[in-house]
Amino acid sequence: MKMFSKTTKLLVASVVLAGLSTASLAADKVYKWKLATTWGPTLHPFIDAPTKMAEMVEKMSNGRLLIRVDAANKHKAPFGVLDMVQGGQYEMGHSASYYWKGKDINLLPFTTMPFGMTAPEQYAWFYYGGGMELMEKAYAPHKMLSFPGGNTGAQMGGWFRKEIKTLDDLKGLKMRIPGFAGEIMAKLGLTVTNIAPGELYTSLERGTIDALEWVGPGMDINMGFHKIAPYYYTGWHEPATELQFLVNKRAYDKLPKDLQAILVTAMKLSSYDMYIQNYDMSATAWEKMKKDYPNIKVETFPKPVMDAMKKANQELRKEMVVGHPLLKEVLDSQEAYQKKVREWTKMSDYLYLKDNL
Amino acid sequence: MKMFSKTTKLLVASVVLAGLSTASLAADKVYKWKLATTWGPTLHPFIDAPTKMAEMVEKMSNGRLLIRVDAANKHKAPFGVLDMVQGGQYEMGHSASYYWKGKDINLLPFTTMPFGMTAPEQYAWFYYGGGMELMEKAYAPHKMLSFPGGNTGAQMGGWFRKEIKTLDDLKGLKMRIPGFAGEIMAKLGLTVTNIAPGELYTSLERGTIDALEWVGPGMDINMGFHKIAPYYYTGWHEPATELQFLVNKRAYDKLPKDLQAILVTAMKLSSYDMYIQNYDMSATAWEKMKKDYPNIKVETFPKPVMDAMKKANQELRKEMVVGHPLLKEVLDSQEAYQKKVREWTKMSDYLYLKDNL
Repeated sequence: MKMFSKTTKLLVASVVLAGLSTASLAADKVYKWKLATTWGPTLHPFIDAPTKMAEMVEKMSNGRLLIRVDAANKHKAPFGVLDMVQGGQYEMGHSASYYWKGKDINLLPFTTMPFGMTAPEQYAWFYYGGGMELMEKAYAPHKMLSFPGGNTGAQMGGWFRKEIKTLDDLKGLKMRIPGFAGEIMAKLGLTVTNIAPGELYTSLERGTIDALEWVGPGMDINMGFHKIAPYYYTGWHEPATELQFLVNKRAYDKLPKDLQAILVTAMKLSSYDMYIQNYDMSATAWEKMKKDYPNIKVETFPKPVMDAMKKANQELRKEMVVGHPLLKEVLDSQEAYQKKVREWTKMSDYLYLKDNL
Repeated sequence: MKMFSKTTKLLVASVVLAGLSTASLAADKVYKWKLATTWGPTLHPFIDAPTKMAEMVEKMSNGRLLIRVDAANKHKAPFGVLDMVQGGQYEMGHSASYYWKGKDINLLPFTTMPFGMTAPEQYAWFYYGGGMELMEKAYAPHKMLSFPGGNTGAQMGGWFRKEIKTLDDLKGLKMRIPGFAGEIMAKLGLTVTNIAPGELYTSLERGTIDALEWVGPGMDINMGFHKIAPYYYTGWHEPATELQFLVNKRAYDKLPKDLQAILVTAMKLSSYDMYIQNYDMSATAWEKMKKDYPNIKVETFPKPVMDAMKKANQELRKEMVVGHPLLKEVLDSQEAYQKKVREWTKMSDYLYLKDNL
């Protein structure tokens, strides 16, 4: 039975569409975003932070905001993430703020600083001590928003083939240690080099380098350094390395308010969660390393070495802030907050742990 | 020009409605929930965790899931939260699992245990070490879901009017210290009492009690204990007190999948965030206390006292698990995880802090 003409059917269809558009089509619009990471597709837990974030966003938005995560092997520009997000080729990025030091020195201190805060201290600074406001200020000229993107916890000071007993033992050593920490080590007389990750093991084995810094047991175990460099020095240079999400501001501003809230919540949660994930990975990997290679020795640098590092750190910080008022503002804010919060860390976790190791 | 009959118009309308109902009417249904807390309306940061959670949920769901947070002064049953959520008068609760020890001993260990894990260690156990699965198992007979609800970090061991130099100094002291920690202190010869929060200051001032345990500087400062009891002992009994969200399972199962994801994400984030909020509150309050009352002395209990506490703790744990296989399973899981994870805490944060206090 043919009840309607073709015209009627078309009209019915258009009225249906009109009804949907006021009530729900706007709400049902699907946003398809892309996120570029600095990491390879198997670099856990770094790659997990944006991946889990995107999964949470998809579920919470009922598929209205879909974020495709591209690992570095896809876009081929691990250190082009900042530019690609700024230019809009990618709506989002996941990387580390200190990589952009060469482009804008103000972006350096939002990852970690030598002799700086631990992970809970630094999160407290970001969220309750003015850190987020300073990060917003630093990223505003780049037309980007930046959010904490996952913490490694304290990184280890590195694998050494020989024991470091005095400051002289460091002089002339060849070490792979990038960034600001590398500048400190250079001041102490080391020859600091950068070597591609894939060549690190062979370089250490053949003596092209004498030492190297990577992350911590959870990420070091697959690199195999513990098989050839038995001295594992505790950390000083990256006490709480926080990765960062970058969001193109124009893209963000186009999202409805509920999707903005979903995105911000998912980023914040995946950041905290990567800290906890890496805590577990480090504990588990260290248990295995120690069992398989009982000769690994965990050492702290002797006091004169540590003092020399601290002195070099202070000198470099002073030089660095000249002509950079925002950088100075951020470093001063971190320093003041650390002084306050460290007192609490000492009387809470530190003194508790001291009697319970 | 009349193009359609009345029948056609009605049909158009019903097709529009049909279109809306499949595509969006179900999605637009508003769920109105209530959450009962154990806390008063100004007990920060405890009350902030469910409040922020509800705000996040409202924003992310675009108003489709509204959770009204009732403080204890509203429902008048601070320790009735478990029953009210189980009975369905409230869809959700926010409290601490160890309060339900008398109803179900298996629920005790999901808050904190004496000489147990620190906050990041315990989060790692919950999310990566099997803790969430065990908590689900323990709450299943109560037809509830339970989720971490905010951590205080390490709590302080309490305010004492006199210094504790030997085990004998503790004997006969009257102390307010509730729960399992109170049982340990009783084994050491203290007279353990419980006193309503509003009467604690006067009791301490008049000598009705000699010591009391509360939380840490952030929450202690408004109680004023530091004005009359200058010895502030570091903690051992609650190294990472995690509050809990409770969710009635029937109510949860009725939510659409996207609202379930929104709820779970918001709870998890507000839990981590309360840990960081209290970290900041403690640091800030301690700075002020120390400035206003420079005579406050931070002390750790002497080793013989600490050893006696540890011994009493072990004895009580052994007695407690008899006839309670699930409790034993949880305690064994925590103990094994702590042994593994503490090694990592030691070589990362602990050894870093040791040289940077």
